[in-house]
Amino acid sequence: MSTHKVVIIGGGFGGLYAAKAFRNLPVDLTVIDRRNYHLFQPLLYQVATGALSPGEIASPIRHILHRQKNTRVLLGEVADIDPAAKEVVLREGARVLYDTLIVAAGATHDYFGHPEWERNAPGLKTIEDATEMRGKILLAFERAEMEHDPDKRRAWLTFVVVGGGATGVELAGALGEIANDTLKHDFRSINPREARIFLVEGEDRVLPSFPPDLSRHAEKSLVRLNVQVRVKARVTSLDGNGVVVGKEGQSETFPAKTLLWAAGVHASPLGQVLHDRTGAPLDKAARVIVNPDLSIPDHPEILVIGDLASYSHQDGKPLPGVAQVAMQMGEYAARLTSARLEGRTIGPFHYFDKGNLAAIGRAAAVAQLGKVHLWGWVAWVIWLFIHIVYLIGFDNRLVVIMEWAYNYFTYNRGARLITGRETDA
Amino acid sequence: MSTHKVVIIGGGFGGLYAAKAFRNLPVDLTVIDRRNYHLFQPLLYQVATGALSPGEIASPIRHILHRQKNTRVLLGEVADIDPAAKEVVLREGARVLYDTLIVAAGATHDYFGHPEWERNAPGLKTIEDATEMRGKILLAFERAEMEHDPDKRRAWLTFVVVGGGATGVELAGALGEIANDTLKHDFRSINPREARIFLVEGEDRVLPSFPPDLSRHAEKSLVRLNVQVRVKARVTSLDGNGVVVGKEGQSETFPAKTLLWAAGVHASPLGQVLHDRTGAPLDKAARVIVNPDLSIPDHPEILVIGDLASYSHQDGKPLPGVAQVAMQMGEYAARLTSARLEGRTIGPFHYFDKGNLAAIGRAAAVAQLGKVHLWGWVAWVIWLFIHIVYLIGFDNRLVVIMEWAYNYFTYNRGARLITGRETDA
Repeated sequence: MSTHKVVIIGGGFGGLYAAKAFRNLPVDLTVIDRRNYHLFQPLLYQVATGALSPGEIASPIRHILHRQKNTRVLLGEVADIDPAAKEVVLREGARVLYDTLIVAAGATHDYFGHPEWERNAPGLKTIEDATEMRGKILLAFERAEMEHDPDKRRAWLTFVVVGGGATGVELAGALGEIANDTLKHDFRSINPREARIFLVEGEDRVLPSFPPDLSRHAEKSLVRLNVQVRVKARVTSLDGNGVVVGKEGQSETFPAKTLLWAAGVHASPLGQVLHDRTGAPLDKAARVIVNPDLSIPDHPEILVIGDLASYSHQDGKPLPGVAQVAMQMGEYAARLTSARLEGRTIGPFHYFDKGNLAAIGRAAAVAQLGKVHLWGWVAWVIWLFIHIVYLIGFDNRLVVIMEWAYNYFTYNRGARLITGRETDA
Repeated sequence: MSTHKVVIIGGGFGGLYAAKAFRNLPVDLTVIDRRNYHLFQPLLYQVATGALSPGEIASPIRHILHRQKNTRVLLGEVADIDPAAKEVVLREGARVLYDTLIVAAGATHDYFGHPEWERNAPGLKTIEDATEMRGKILLAFERAEMEHDPDKRRAWLTFVVVGGGATGVELAGALGEIANDTLKHDFRSINPREARIFLVEGEDRVLPSFPPDLSRHAEKSLVRLNVQVRVKARVTSLDGNGVVVGKEGQSETFPAKTLLWAAGVHASPLGQVLHDRTGAPLDKAARVIVNPDLSIPDHPEILVIGDLASYSHQDGKPLPGVAQVAMQMGEYAARLTSARLEGRTIGPFHYFDKGNLAAIGRAAAVAQLGKVHLWGWVAWVIWLFIHIVYLIGFDNRLVVIMEWAYNYFTYNRGARLITGRETDA
């Protein structure tokens, strides 16, 4: 009998933690990703704001798994899944057979039915997104420096972040820091401190997934960095010159050249593929609604994990699309597969919530650790410590820590490059 | 009387060292560059081969000069120079007046009349070039891993570097290291050590600008890294499937998917602009042939420095396009301007050759320091030391040194990312 074949689609937190959990199991494992690297996404906003370089928060998947003898890594994009033949079809033409398939293809942001907004308000999911965003932010200050018309200059110095979840709050905080400290001495015609930064959130508070007291602390920290918060506000229109926000029947217009998108969730198209091929149900964000053991109906051999999965405990609230959930799902998927190989079964997946963190600028954060709520620099130290521990788990991330320490004491952001073939937006 | 206006075009080694030399002089200085960063070009091959991240060898020009009160920095592309009005015209529309103009716009590689070769054989002058080259190199190993046809696989595992100067030798050496050490354990279907690396040079030895004994040592170090050297060989045709090289009437065909270009010099188009506007003579690489004081005929107020300048001492050999020459020219341009402001003059520019270095892989180099010739690890330690000293001169480059130290002991190359919107070449 040939070895049990496991195929994992996606090398994010879910896929990678699943892969690592298969290390000593008697399976033949293939990890497929269209990128050659695992990305430490919680720090992507640090790339978008010039504090870290892409290489510092990404490691080749192949390298992370290179000592794992039962594992091979393929760079390829999955075009289709054939549940009858138990095959994954790559866009490059290859077909990969599986006995167990773990789909961890993730999700991206959502423009609420306005895909055309992406052009002017880039999101933050990939390295390319981050370097594009970085270029956009830095270019705005450059253009303002050259602009004589006061209204146009003001538009170049206005930044609107859409979405007040963790990414939006962290982006806005970092923007505040750039304007107030990093660029302080760099310009001659403008004062970067004149920059106006708006954070727009549809719910009634920032960080709506956190307890309300931490939302209040986060807002205070943002205000201290000159970020202006607009809650219960939704974008109604958006173009290259600004954004119109509706709020309780009224509307507010922000003439702004720099719009950054950190809202909405839309699952990977592989959710739709699974739905078409197996009838697996999808939720409204196109995520696959999974069984208690993360499999899909009628296909116990197909497990969906991470941001692509829609999974609810008894309370009926789907688990959030965060790294913690994906990692625990990945480990569960490996445990379940292993148990099945031994003819056993295990109980349903249960998420153990270790807590929730968001950083605001360089010395403030909010942290929910069970019933303990922390904020200010205490929370920031915990934020830093936890990120350092996870980064060390991957690769040589000592360099990142050095860079952080240096940036912290000097207000510097060393990776302030405007790159890309077309930077003249 | 208003302050004397100095405009510097270009923030490379020439422009930046000129700008720094103006720090305490009574002038009103503007530095214009189409990039917002100064690039430490001698280490660009380390980005192309995944050892360093772009942010680690680039610093914002604005930041480098931010404490220099007499200086402003503009991000813009120079479209034209008007010597009658003494104005620099930016593509963005702005016009900048000068009393003294220092043109340090640099040069790029040259495809010997075959610009169409660039598509398949990218050069190495910009950050974007380096990340593209990095993606191409890494993707070749990925494609080979998926390829079943032995001929195609062999073509994916064949790398041809065109040009045996310092950049070509350093690239080929780094490729050797990647194939032999870095990727050793990473693949399952291929053995990266099967990779064939060819270095093609038109002259009769690699590093033709070095003394012949050092060329021999460099070649030995390359061979040790499995690089095959072809001298007196010129590319006669080139496409996406390989390259044909002519050598002493015979021709050799290399079926190779990865071609890297490190040959030829072609000056910035601003050389042509100066020629059209002032009649300044150009050499065959379109560099501006300058007077002994780096000015151009009939325009003492226009100085051309760095790779864009063609300057010869009595021996008639133009100075090489290296950082040392540009830096000394930049400092000379500032000294000359300062002397003129005081009604004095100074002698002609004289290049003091401090030496010449090239690294081959991770523990070998060749170094010419005056009459002293060094090679092997002794030269490599000197190479490392000199680069560290210069890097420290810029910015927080401690991080780079940490990264180097780590990479050296682990054979790692942490920045092995395939990025870009279209990686599926």
